[in-house]
Amino acid sequence: MDFSSFLISLGTSFVIFLVLILLFTFLSRKVGNKEVYYPNRIMRGMDPWEGGCRTRNPFAWIREAFSSTEQDVIAMSGVDSAVYFVFLTTVLEMLVLASIVLLPVLLPLAATENSVKSADTMSKRAFNDLDKLSMGHVKENSPRLWAFVIATYWVSFVAYYLLWKAYNHVSDLRAAALVSPKVRAEQFAIVVRDIPPPPQGQTRKEQVDSYFQTIYPDTYYRSMVVTNNKEVNTIWEELEGYKKKLARAEAIYAQEKHEGIRPTNKIGFLGLIGKKVDSIEYYSEKINELIPKLEAEQKVTLREKQQPSALVFFFSRVTAASAAQSLHARMVDTWTVMDAPEPRQLIWTNLPKKFYERQIRQSVVYVIVSLTIIFYMIPIGLISAFTTLTNLQKLLPFLKPIINFFKIKTVLEAYLPQIALIIFLALLPKFLLFLSKVEGIPSQSHVERAASGKYFYFTVFNVFLGVTLGGTLFDSLKTIEKNPNFIVSLLAESLPSNATFFLTYVALRFFVGYGLELSRIVPLIVYHLKRKYACKTEAELKEAWSPGDLGFATRIPSDMLIITIVLCYSVIAPIIIPFGVLYFGLGWLVLRNQASLAMSFFLVLKVYVPSYESYGRMWPHINRRIVAALLLYQVTTFGYFGIKKFYYAPILIPLPILSLIFSLVCRKKFYHFFQTTALDVACREFKETPNMEMVFRSFIPPSLTASDRAEEDQFDDALSQVSRSASFA
Amino acid sequence: MDFSSFLISLGTSFVIFLVLILLFTFLSRKVGNKEVYYPNRIMRGMDPWEGGCRTRNPFAWIREAFSSTEQDVIAMSGVDSAVYFVFLTTVLEMLVLASIVLLPVLLPLAATENSVKSADTMSKRAFNDLDKLSMGHVKENSPRLWAFVIATYWVSFVAYYLLWKAYNHVSDLRAAALVSPKVRAEQFAIVVRDIPPPPQGQTRKEQVDSYFQTIYPDTYYRSMVVTNNKEVNTIWEELEGYKKKLARAEAIYAQEKHEGIRPTNKIGFLGLIGKKVDSIEYYSEKINELIPKLEAEQKVTLREKQQPSALVFFFSRVTAASAAQSLHARMVDTWTVMDAPEPRQLIWTNLPKKFYERQIRQSVVYVIVSLTIIFYMIPIGLISAFTTLTNLQKLLPFLKPIINFFKIKTVLEAYLPQIALIIFLALLPKFLLFLSKVEGIPSQSHVERAASGKYFYFTVFNVFLGVTLGGTLFDSLKTIEKNPNFIVSLLAESLPSNATFFLTYVALRFFVGYGLELSRIVPLIVYHLKRKYACKTEAELKEAWSPGDLGFATRIPSDMLIITIVLCYSVIAPIIIPFGVLYFGLGWLVLRNQASLAMSFFLVLKVYVPSYESYGRMWPHINRRIVAALLLYQVTTFGYFGIKKFYYAPILIPLPILSLIFSLVCRKKFYHFFQTTALDVACREFKETPNMEMVFRSFIPPSLTASDRAEEDQFDDALSQVSRSASFA
Repeated sequence: MDFSSFLISLGTSFVIFLVLILLFTFLSRKVGNKEVYYPNRIMRGMDPWEGGCRTRNPFAWIREAFSSTEQDVIAMSGVDSAVYFVFLTTVLEMLVLASIVLLPVLLPLAATENSVKSADTMSKRAFNDLDKLSMGHVKENSPRLWAFVIATYWVSFVAYYLLWKAYNHVSDLRAAALVSPKVRAEQFAIVVRDIPPPPQGQTRKEQVDSYFQTIYPDTYYRSMVVTNNKEVNTIWEELEGYKKKLARAEAIYAQEKHEGIRPTNKIGFLGLIGKKVDSIEYYSEKINELIPKLEAEQKVTLREKQQPSALVFFFSRVTAASAAQSLHARMVDTWTVMDAPEPRQLIWTNLPKKFYERQIRQSVVYVIVSLTIIFYMIPIGLISAFTTLTNLQKLLPFLKPIINFFKIKTVLEAYLPQIALIIFLALLPKFLLFLSKVEGIPSQSHVERAASGKYFYFTVFNVFLGVTLGGTLFDSLKTIEKNPNFIVSLLAESLPSNATFFLTYVALRFFVGYGLELSRIVPLIVYHLKRKYACKTEAELKEAWSPGDLGFATRIPSDMLIITIVLCYSVIAPIIIPFGVLYFGLGWLVLRNQASLAMSFFLVLKVYVPSYESYGRMWPHINRRIVAALLLYQVTTFGYFGIKKFYYAPILIPLPILSLIFSLVCRKKFYHFFQTTALDVACREFKETPNMEMVFRSFIPPSLTASDRAEEDQFDDALSQVSRSASFA
Repeated sequence: MDFSSFLISLGTSFVIFLVLILLFTFLSRKVGNKEVYYPNRIMRGMDPWEGGCRTRNPFAWIREAFSSTEQDVIAMSGVDSAVYFVFLTTVLEMLVLASIVLLPVLLPLAATENSVKSADTMSKRAFNDLDKLSMGHVKENSPRLWAFVIATYWVSFVAYYLLWKAYNHVSDLRAAALVSPKVRAEQFAIVVRDIPPPPQGQTRKEQVDSYFQTIYPDTYYRSMVVTNNKEVNTIWEELEGYKKKLARAEAIYAQEKHEGIRPTNKIGFLGLIGKKVDSIEYYSEKINELIPKLEAEQKVTLREKQQPSALVFFFSRVTAASAAQSLHARMVDTWTVMDAPEPRQLIWTNLPKKFYERQIRQSVVYVIVSLTIIFYMIPIGLISAFTTLTNLQKLLPFLKPIINFFKIKTVLEAYLPQIALIIFLALLPKFLLFLSKVEGIPSQSHVERAASGKYFYFTVFNVFLGVTLGGTLFDSLKTIEKNPNFIVSLLAESLPSNATFFLTYVALRFFVGYGLELSRIVPLIVYHLKRKYACKTEAELKEAWSPGDLGFATRIPSDMLIITIVLCYSVIAPIIIPFGVLYFGLGWLVLRNQASLAMSFFLVLKVYVPSYESYGRMWPHINRRIVAALLLYQVTTFGYFGIKKFYYAPILIPLPILSLIFSLVCRKKFYHFFQTTALDVACREFKETPNMEMVFRSFIPPSLTASDRAEEDQFDDALSQVSRSASFA
């Protein structure tokens, strides 16, 4: 790719971005779209355009984003979102501080080098104007390389300082959230798994109660034995489906009342065949049929489908926090405990999985993930080699006339590999989420963290190393055969030639990705389509404009990939830093907007939303991965100095060691508090006495909630209450 | 070394053993030695020869050893000794079960092989009669090797089964000891370290009290702030020294009363120069001087030398067990907790060491240990090469006439390398104990476990690998230069040639080592010398015949070395197994005897004895190291099959993987309970209410115990009591 192609790609990206911003400005002024762009304002009963006129500055959202404080974000979107902003801010500061030193010093140093010699050695590769601004343009063993050494140290120390500050800050945020006087149900509960078979003559409930009653005579409240809810969930979902259909039929009937036509439907396959019936009557009948069936199934489930796992509730937060950290039984594979996740993110089906089953599942999943990482490498390597136009012309000769048209050719040349990459990456997250859930992790946030980790390794290994090494593999297959062991120098050697590829990738990601996200084109179209053709009731409409959650599982690894790329090139080709700054700066702005969107939606709708609060538990992972990126940066830069035949390159050796020590110290100092709750945080007192009945009820799955409130005694089968049971002396 | 030299060495070992046993029989009948041989009987007020006559069977101790049950051992010597016997029993069973299959099958198979071909390939090495009984005598790729493959599997599975059984058993022993209704002070206390500086206007004591009072409002009893006892200890030791000297002077005076001479001493350097004074008067005066000085220093220490560490006491065992496992502060480097060790094994000086200081000390110690392991390898490698007689003759020509005398030559040839090894190894344990203590570990038993681990790695790397590879290095330096990577095959290749060396080593260890231990020659001589020339008081006499503890820190790694050697040779040269059986069988017998000696001593003397109870915490380490030995065995045997050009050798590959899985499962299932106390074990109730005052007092170091019992209020400075302090609301 030459310089002009790079500029054109940059230009097109920017044009797309401008178009999207204009679209956003235009569309957001339309009254019909207000639910998509200003759900938070609507929900608070405010006018979406405040001043009331349509002269609102199209970039007013920027001012709004800046004016919201961290406390606002926590109040609106929870600690996890705030932590994500800490991440964005930290990376942004890191890049800004780096660019302050690197851009004014390194760029002139590289550009003014009279580089006849180095041009000789590099002549085999496409040499372009951009490369003149990079370290590749500096002569071998030139004294100017000292500046690059100092820059390497500067970036590292800036990163250490900011990461340390951020870890401290996040730890404060987490502690503040946990000491809050608000009663959170999950702070009073622990999850118990791997309960051994109950002794003869005791039910599972009695067993759990007597076990914990003995250990915690003063603070034990009651237990809820996990049941196999498969059948009851099926019936409940069927019932809910009919309830929705009934509401819909009634809405249609209400709309078309003047015509007096009662809605009808066919009861056969997919509503396409079979007898035609009156919808309202038919659904009401079905609902009346299902309610007693559900109640019967609830009773059977609670009595007979008890699993060897339970939720245990305590009167005190400290006891619950301490119990979740303590070994209860001598054999570690029985009575295993952990702190309870929020009710909404509990994965019930994973709770009864046995200890060794979980271990084996985890191992198997790790093997599958490793295989995936290795075998995805091949297609991506091929993509970066074959999606050059010359190859495409050979493979698909009918494209020739189009390709030969100059403008299209340049654009295609700039974008094809990146688009291929993005499509490939888009296929993966669902698969990784599925795999993480299969491991047996019982909380949604933990599943997402696990998936996010897998995705990170995937992107770094495949995208960064894959593309970098892959490009070189096709460029210089012979060189590798000679030195198969020297991967660091190989990596470093192939870095400069791929700089423009990644520059384009970053540009594409921030201009097009964030543009799309801000303009909300896709949700807008979906919303309008649904409103026109599908949604009939209020609930359906609200669901249609639900913005969903921020999707940390894929968002963070993508950002991680960007920061890895930017860090690795920061000294070798400092021109990449401004793009990184733009990416994270824009991200911060757009996300600030999105976060309030997502959360305000959740505040009102109160139905199931794929969202959760883990009190910043993902930060240790983020921190570790930034340090990993830093390590990769230090090693590759060191390797590149070696290629430049700089005799003092070993002066960089302390850096990777420092990074490892930094990571270790962070882990030692902070990590444990992110795994569990510190007791001096949990021991703050509440203003009001917590309502334990409410705490307990919040964990009952909806399918087991008694439809008739009077009949609550039925829960005593699996959801024991100590005061009523006489099972222990 | 040829076969006759091996037989002679075996013979001499056995003769030494017989002589020692006879000595034991003879000496133990002498009335004057009864304190050395039967301290336990004397302490129980029994006649040492029971029947009253001297016709007692000289091997009666064997019957006695067999008749004592595990419960007796626990009652007499504690769980740690019982666990050590479980180790000996397990290894013994393992070797017996292995020999039942291996000896009758493999020995004939190897001996009857018509091994012309293999003699060719092995011709360069000393080929002797013993080698005919080993796998080296079997032809390359012979079908007979299948029997050896099956044997390899058999030994491994026997080991897995017995280790699993033993781990379960030890876990039961530990649980039984921990639930015992006896009040043990350490079960009610936790150690708190890294306490942050107290806030303005609060003393350290108030800070600790208010911190734990808030978290455990119902179960907190009181705290004891750790003080810097250096000065007070010096004064106290001086005082105790004078008290001893006074008692001694009074004893001398009483003995020589009829002569009316009062004992005198010189007060100058070492009692050799200076003014002559009346001892009794002088020491009494000194004691009277020191007592007020000690009391003043105690007050200063308690008030002003408080350290950022404390012992915290709870009313309940469950709370203490749970508190020791829970994270208390957000920052892991503050308020770190751990379960309290027994008072007698607490290393006070290590308690106030800061978190990162401990981490750094640990790293530095690990580096030193690694260096020690590496640099000890060189002298040991040289020993095994130079202590052949031919080399000795060259180096020390004056020895020639002695060496050439046949008998001496053979004996020397057999023993020289082993004796050199044993001397080298004897120098090490103190150094490793010192290093482990420097790490900052606050309990003696943990220090010994840590030292034992270092010693194990040391012996395996240096003795086993060092001697094996060292011998080969000098034999065939050229072979290695060709294949520097293939260490496994190198190791396997050098195994058979060193078989006799290790056979002799094992024989020497069990005959001479255990003979010495049983006959107690060294303590006997020391005792008689002391009684004659040094000891004047009863207390001094008792100290003189103290048998000390079993010394697990060096005993276990030595045994581990033997089991590693025996396992590694078990299939390659099965003739080694009977020697292993003898070693561990004899060890079991002798130790049973020693254990009762050591413990009975402790029961009576009640002064400081270097002994402790860790409730079997060393078992996980033992288990892990046996599995490591097993792994080494499997890898070397696999390598040796490769050398035998056996095409089906890969059939052994699953074994090392199985060992790793076995180790992992053991760790997952059992290990956590050995690190900490399970709550359902700690929650058993006591018959009597524990006397918390006694629990608290048992932790006060002797130098801080008030000499005047009335003055106990002074402890309130550092040893706070909640009920009396008004520091928190």
